[in-house]
Amino acid sequence: MILTVTLNAALDVTYEVGALEQGGSHRVRTVRERAGGKGVNVARVATALECEVVATGLLGGAVGDLVRDDLDQSGIAHDFADIAGTSRRTLTIVETETGEATVLNEAGPDVRPEEWQAFLDHFGTLAASAAVVVLSGSLPPGLPTDAYAELVRRAPGRVVLDTDGTALTEGVPGRPDVIKPNADELRRVTAGTVSNGGNPAGASEVVSRAASLRAAGAGSVLVSLGADGMLAVTSDGVWRAVPPRVVVGNPTGAGDAAVAATARALLLERPWDELLRDAVALSAAAVAAPVAGDFDPDLYVRLLPEIKIEGLPCPS
Amino acid sequence: MILTVTLNAALDVTYEVGALEQGGSHRVRTVRERAGGKGVNVARVATALECEVVATGLLGGAVGDLVRDDLDQSGIAHDFADIAGTSRRTLTIVETETGEATVLNEAGPDVRPEEWQAFLDHFGTLAASAAVVVLSGSLPPGLPTDAYAELVRRAPGRVVLDTDGTALTEGVPGRPDVIKPNADELRRVTAGTVSNGGNPAGASEVVSRAASLRAAGAGSVLVSLGADGMLAVTSDGVWRAVPPRVVVGNPTGAGDAAVAATARALLLERPWDELLRDAVALSAAAVAAPVAGDFDPDLYVRLLPEIKIEGLPCPS
Repeated sequence: MILTVTLNAALDVTYEVGALEQGGSHRVRTVRERAGGKGVNVARVATALECEVVATGLLGGAVGDLVRDDLDQSGIAHDFADIAGTSRRTLTIVETETGEATVLNEAGPDVRPEEWQAFLDHFGTLAASAAVVVLSGSLPPGLPTDAYAELVRRAPGRVVLDTDGTALTEGVPGRPDVIKPNADELRRVTAGTVSNGGNPAGASEVVSRAASLRAAGAGSVLVSLGADGMLAVTSDGVWRAVPPRVVVGNPTGAGDAAVAATARALLLERPWDELLRDAVALSAAAVAAPVAGDFDPDLYVRLLPEIKIEGLPCPS
Repeated sequence: MILTVTLNAALDVTYEVGALEQGGSHRVRTVRERAGGKGVNVARVATALECEVVATGLLGGAVGDLVRDDLDQSGIAHDFADIAGTSRRTLTIVETETGEATVLNEAGPDVRPEEWQAFLDHFGTLAASAAVVVLSGSLPPGLPTDAYAELVRRAPGRVVLDTDGTALTEGVPGRPDVIKPNADELRRVTAGTVSNGGNPAGASEVVSRAASLRAAGAGSVLVSLGADGMLAVTSDGVWRAVPPRVVVGNPTGAGDAAVAATARALLLERPWDELLRDAVALSAAAVAAPVAGDFDPDLYVRLLPEIKIEGLPCPS
């Protein structure tokens, strides 16, 4: 079983308006709501891939109830812990005339220390029967910054950690099996640790930065490079996977699709080159779908054999 | 007792952001939520004035529950009818750097015919013990356009109608005792019925337009003129009330405060000049408060004796 953890789960609200006018008054044409947060997106993709998956994390208040309702309707198995605060919403305002999207993210509820302790027990019970645990997204206010390290230590199975900033740097010492920063996130969390070498976007620099996170505790580092594919820095070697063409669409959720592919590959104990191929194809197929957590299944199957995999030199 | 009716009640959500950037991603600094809709604002002001008031209307779904929770916490007596649809939200995005406000209004739930019939019974029971009924705001999708006329006919007491467009023009034949358009609304609903006379903002034109709505069924017409005060066109005469100075602030909710003052004056059977004085003072005190439904009580008391009342010639 794959267990996804979303500590700052959200209700993703989408408003369609004609054109957004700063300082103006707008009639909202359509309102869509759906359970969100990166771990929930991973669970949605993994469910669509017919993996056995359970979504957990923290939920509270009326917004938490709406998230649970949507998970039920979407057929995603879930077992979230209750908190007293109200879960956050994210709002995306889409302008129908131009397609431009403006995003407003609420910070999330304050989690009390006793709620975090109760979640650790809840997580331990669920993780005991999970071959793979996925930890995704930001930490809500009130949680310790090393919350992810604590969860990694309590998980007996393989762990994928997909977060950013302090939550990532303080999560890595817990020794997750895989972390999945994108190139920007990687650069931010390794600032000062690797010399630039005059080529900020080069593969060798990315490999060096990833190697420094392996040294800090990460088993393997998957770096998503957007339209350029992904790069895996592992104890078995270094690989790069490149998609055959650029897919145009909504990149939100592409990283979550790659994490879902990674979790499935770990569950099935597939080798790194196969894992990378799957992650890059699924990620591109997610870009082609308009909403985070969805992917285009036909495009996914078409892209799989077209992903180019190449080995790279290991970091010196 | 004053009964306020809000058929399209809302949860008013306010987001504070640093600066709103079209196409950008924003962290919301603070989230505030409160029960809204024009009739709810009237009930809030009337409650603060220590009137006996009950708020009714239609509420549904998780948003409806949040509206009821806020009414409870605000000490506003309420008895809304349930509907299957989810009540709407309004979102105001306030930029802390400039104070500029961008507003997004959801349309509201589709109300089923049987829900409207059930509300008519519910309303009849409540209205039987209400000396004054206040009907405020837009109609949610699914209601007949003459919904307000139907409610006016079923109310044994005095009725104040504060709405716009078709809901107003089709509500007036029900013979409400008072309607309260602002100058723009008055102009829209009487377009073509009154010659312009070369002076679109003049008092005589406003009086003529108001008189045409009296001829269509309204007992008296209170026209709010923003910073210029209010004008009353009644069977007893025509009055204008002018505040001593311009109050700077948030005009949203100023009209609702004027309606609350009107409802109280009808309840206490006060003469029109006193009603106008009270409505203009309370309206200006509401502009000085940052949130619709609130008013500055000290400013209200200070302004009351300073409002200038003058009689105007009756329409020919």
